[in-house]
Amino acid sequence: MLALSAARLGLQCRIYDPSPNGPAAHVSDQYTQAEYSDLADVKAFAKTCDIVTYEFENVPSDTALAASTVSTLYPPANALDVAQDRLTEKSFIRDIAKVPVANFEDVASLKGLQSSVNHLGLPCILKTRRMGYDGKGQFVIRTENDIISAWEGLNGQAAILEKFMPFIREVSVIAARNSRGDFTSYPVIENIHKNQILHTSTAPSRNLTTTRDDAQNLARRIMDALGYVGVMATEFFEMEDGSLIVNEIAPRVHNSGHWTQDAGCIDQFELHIRAICGWPLGSTAPLHKVEMTNLLGEDVNDWANYAKEPNTFIHLYGKSDPRAGRKMGHINRIIKSE
Amino acid sequence: MLALSAARLGLQCRIYDPSPNGPAAHVSDQYTQAEYSDLADVKAFAKTCDIVTYEFENVPSDTALAASTVSTLYPPANALDVAQDRLTEKSFIRDIAKVPVANFEDVASLKGLQSSVNHLGLPCILKTRRMGYDGKGQFVIRTENDIISAWEGLNGQAAILEKFMPFIREVSVIAARNSRGDFTSYPVIENIHKNQILHTSTAPSRNLTTTRDDAQNLARRIMDALGYVGVMATEFFEMEDGSLIVNEIAPRVHNSGHWTQDAGCIDQFELHIRAICGWPLGSTAPLHKVEMTNLLGEDVNDWANYAKEPNTFIHLYGKSDPRAGRKMGHINRIIKSE
Repeated sequence: MLALSAARLGLQCRIYDPSPNGPAAHVSDQYTQAEYSDLADVKAFAKTCDIVTYEFENVPSDTALAASTVSTLYPPANALDVAQDRLTEKSFIRDIAKVPVANFEDVASLKGLQSSVNHLGLPCILKTRRMGYDGKGQFVIRTENDIISAWEGLNGQAAILEKFMPFIREVSVIAARNSRGDFTSYPVIENIHKNQILHTSTAPSRNLTTTRDDAQNLARRIMDALGYVGVMATEFFEMEDGSLIVNEIAPRVHNSGHWTQDAGCIDQFELHIRAICGWPLGSTAPLHKVEMTNLLGEDVNDWANYAKEPNTFIHLYGKSDPRAGRKMGHINRIIKSE
Repeated sequence: MLALSAARLGLQCRIYDPSPNGPAAHVSDQYTQAEYSDLADVKAFAKTCDIVTYEFENVPSDTALAASTVSTLYPPANALDVAQDRLTEKSFIRDIAKVPVANFEDVASLKGLQSSVNHLGLPCILKTRRMGYDGKGQFVIRTENDIISAWEGLNGQAAILEKFMPFIREVSVIAARNSRGDFTSYPVIENIHKNQILHTSTAPSRNLTTTRDDAQNLARRIMDALGYVGVMATEFFEMEDGSLIVNEIAPRVHNSGHWTQDAGCIDQFELHIRAICGWPLGSTAPLHKVEMTNLLGEDVNDWANYAKEPNTFIHLYGKSDPRAGRKMGHINRIIKSE
């Protein structure tokens, strides 16, 4: 979707992907299939580009750094370092950006885990430091009895323990910052998950009079602290008292921002391209309220019904195997004013 | 732009283009550079496609027919035959579709031209039958004195003479029809030309209470007569009494339909893809009034100013040489309700 937005602006994209047949292969100028660890290939590729970016937060930061030695890399590689490791991420957000996160502790042993459970109190969640997404690598500890099975679930992976936050809602902010420090943000987005996978995102979120500016300001504080350039997503827990706690950041365009494609403003993909290319960021004020629904697995087979709905826009990813839970596409529905 | 729309729907496009570096090369799955006259290449290419379409009305109809022998071709090749030759086009529209056009006569000699000028009356316009666009191949005859220079301007090309119609406005209709005969149309578009090149298109057109349904019905009559499948543009002259006269048709997505990309409904490119693939056509009712302005030649250098305007969307074609009059891109401005 980034490549499609770049094409709309007359820019050409070249893709570097370890997969032989990534979706961008079909909509880009050139496609290089090579490993992230082949730094010579990475550099040879990056040399042919004016700007290099990424849309996957588990690109190794060595790979990103290699690209940055021969081209301009945005977002900067330190955003990957921070986002890839929950311990680094939470520490950075709390200690450097001074933005609230749930209480957490580094966990290095079963004994350490038991002691952290005592410090933080129950319930809490044991999370692998790396490679977790869509609820993977997370173990809820409700009672003392859950401690050992959670520890065994880690299977030796490094982890942190987080206090469980009794949030009333999950919201996110998609924002952009350019190299001059200009900042813009879409309205706060309300996210509903099913089975720990994002199901719908609606923007602007309902009833957010007190937290709207807060959320955007908190996102900006993190992006400023990172010297961030490009689009970044910040996910929050909204607490009963209206306060916000950052859950995590994603240094890329984000599923909870797909609604922007049909909202009557610059969409998150174009916004990212504009930000990294030094263009004016443009307007992020939607003309409509939009609800995005992910098409997971077999949901995608209903595409013809969605195609008939007025004020509904279909985006399909062309993946062939609709296995359960796989993101196959999404639809954006414009919600007429109530 | 068709390839970008197809990609949004999860479909892959392969391109056949005589040019080594056509714009679709950068956004498509495969790119075949070969001549239209190489029918073996055309067939080999078409065999790899489920559906073949075109977005240039001067594709030779033999080329289209060759593709249609090994794949499904939409729009049908007869639409090319009709649209490529002004004599065939006007005759088809007047005699088969029974839709009004300006009076015209086939012109085969200087003597015949003089006699046609007498029949039709002055002023009138001598037009080459083939390959005319943006005012090219047209010679206005205001007085008897213009006849010889107009004839010489033809340089031996076959031509027709048309009565000049004192129109008050040029409007167009972009409509789609699928193989089941389902039809849908965007609102009537008002077009302003400068130096015979489209400058702005605004939709919905102002003050069209009497002609709106007429225009759409006339377009449909032509498309039904052609057994048309896909998006087609019909250009009209609007006369002082509100009546409409067809100027020409274009069997493809059309510059006067580019505003649909940012109107809050299915755009003309996706509509064409839906129509030729047998998808539900979807909604063509715009949520906004939009004004499209072409960026011709050096106009494109103002892109950064347009990028700052709220409610303005930029589309650039990535062409390197901004020579005078060349279509380099366009902008769509959402016009807030007055």
